[in-house]
Amino acid sequence: MTVTIQDIHEATKRIKPYIHRTPVLTNESLNQKVGANVFMKCENLQKIGAFKFRGASNAVWSLTDEEAKRGVCTHSSGNHAQALALAAKMRGIPAYIVMPSNAPQVKKDAVAGYGGQITYCEPTLEARESNLEKVKNETGATMIHPYNNEKVIAGQGTATLELLEEIPNLDVIIAPIGGGGLISGTSIAATETKRGMRVIGAEPEMADDAFRSMKAGKIMPSMNPNSIADGLLSSLGSLTFPIIQERVEQIVTVSESAMIESMKFIWERAKIIIEPSSATVIAVLWEKKIDLAGLNVGVILSGGNVDLGKLYW
Amino acid sequence: MTVTIQDIHEATKRIKPYIHRTPVLTNESLNQKVGANVFMKCENLQKIGAFKFRGASNAVWSLTDEEAKRGVCTHSSGNHAQALALAAKMRGIPAYIVMPSNAPQVKKDAVAGYGGQITYCEPTLEARESNLEKVKNETGATMIHPYNNEKVIAGQGTATLELLEEIPNLDVIIAPIGGGGLISGTSIAATETKRGMRVIGAEPEMADDAFRSMKAGKIMPSMNPNSIADGLLSSLGSLTFPIIQERVEQIVTVSESAMIESMKFIWERAKIIIEPSSATVIAVLWEKKIDLAGLNVGVILSGGNVDLGKLYW
Repeated sequence: MTVTIQDIHEATKRIKPYIHRTPVLTNESLNQKVGANVFMKCENLQKIGAFKFRGASNAVWSLTDEEAKRGVCTHSSGNHAQALALAAKMRGIPAYIVMPSNAPQVKKDAVAGYGGQITYCEPTLEARESNLEKVKNETGATMIHPYNNEKVIAGQGTATLELLEEIPNLDVIIAPIGGGGLISGTSIAATETKRGMRVIGAEPEMADDAFRSMKAGKIMPSMNPNSIADGLLSSLGSLTFPIIQERVEQIVTVSESAMIESMKFIWERAKIIIEPSSATVIAVLWEKKIDLAGLNVGVILSGGNVDLGKLYW
Repeated sequence: MTVTIQDIHEATKRIKPYIHRTPVLTNESLNQKVGANVFMKCENLQKIGAFKFRGASNAVWSLTDEEAKRGVCTHSSGNHAQALALAAKMRGIPAYIVMPSNAPQVKKDAVAGYGGQITYCEPTLEARESNLEKVKNETGATMIHPYNNEKVIAGQGTATLELLEEIPNLDVIIAPIGGGGLISGTSIAATETKRGMRVIGAEPEMADDAFRSMKAGKIMPSMNPNSIADGLLSSLGSLTFPIIQERVEQIVTVSESAMIESMKFIWERAKIIIEPSSATVIAVLWEKKIDLAGLNVGVILSGGNVDLGKLYW
């Protein structure tokens, strides 16, 4: 079972009443700095401040009424938790969220603000999964995985369909890779809409499990990643990895300093707030490890959820 | 001589190839917080990070070739300087900018980055005007006043035409008042496009010269204003004041703390960077000094040029 372009078109129709159609911004200073024509699909301006709302909405609105009334549940360190809480709230159903106790305060507050019912746990995958299992058994809620879920992947792909509708002549699209949900949806939408479209994944050097997985030809787990890109610390999933293998040209890793410089540049010059995970796609252009000179480059700015009390510069 | 809706329509055509069509964003958290449906026209996402690029572009591209080749000049504490420098650069002509020595570093850097030729002076109106006169005499450049100029006012009005094209059913538009160029263009565009449209000016309590001028029925000078809204410290002009008297329903003054809270809320929830001057329009809604409950409220977010090293919270 995989995800098709048809699934993404259906997701587009399904979630349209609930999501923001986010703007595509350009910035001359950025273009000059990196030597390419960059088109920023601003999912940081999406509801809950991240693309995750697309996938969560598609999953929530795909449930039958019978399933829906028992609610949804997930474990997430942040954006997916907010996304699921808000999507559930919009459908009028409960969302049970297992969160690691060390998640950023701004994300905890936001999940609670959207009416999510939070269970805190230790910040380990084991603790998250066992707590989630318990919640699921107690409530009968449908588990919505942050990325290893067809409906979620299809939902994430809708951003790229919108981007290509507005800017059809892109040469390449860059998206961040955490668990692979965004890049999976992006790569299906891009390569099926426009034959030969290049798709590049952006990943922190300090959390390079997808890069290593592509080299190894199998999923390599994320081992104690130590990156400021707190949205990109997950390992790939059984659904996302084969899609990435098939459709993503390459994964480019970026340094923490390039992420911070890129992030500050975007705040200062484009006047939008992006989180470190988003900055990876700009950092790919910034570091020029690969040659994209003169190309029309679409980038997915994945989110803007940062603690404003804790800046990186 | 004044500015007509026809002037604004002509400006729209004239500057279209050079400006960004900025997005109109909505934010559910903001709507809930202030109890109205707010439509944010994001001129912070305009080139140079402020609406000023519209007026400057209209002025620069209205010059004859003969005038243009001698260049343009102005005195400005910031956004207008950047705007004029970039507009001139795009037409390939020189821009001579007189700036007060205490202007924010980020604005000085930006003017220089756009190729503006800067003369620094003491931060008094007298010093600015005498230095500008000198520059003008030496170069033959056309002086483009930051706001007391028909072409500039017409250019600023184009943002409102775009906003009304997208959201025709607005009940009221709020724009900040400094020298009055933006609110003049806004009010002509709004009231001539839609009869009965309400236009409200937003001004810091600590720089309330426009509020006092409306009460007095004559231009009251700005006296040592002490507000963080560094874009709103100018006095009204002979062109802008009569337009404001005729077309602006009222001027609402806002506290510094409401501006800071509003600014932080917009950064955090809408993920866009606005400068203190922009925050005045949100602060009007935030403080609820006037009743706008349930209305469709357009706000002009005038700019996003802040020093990221110097946050207000």
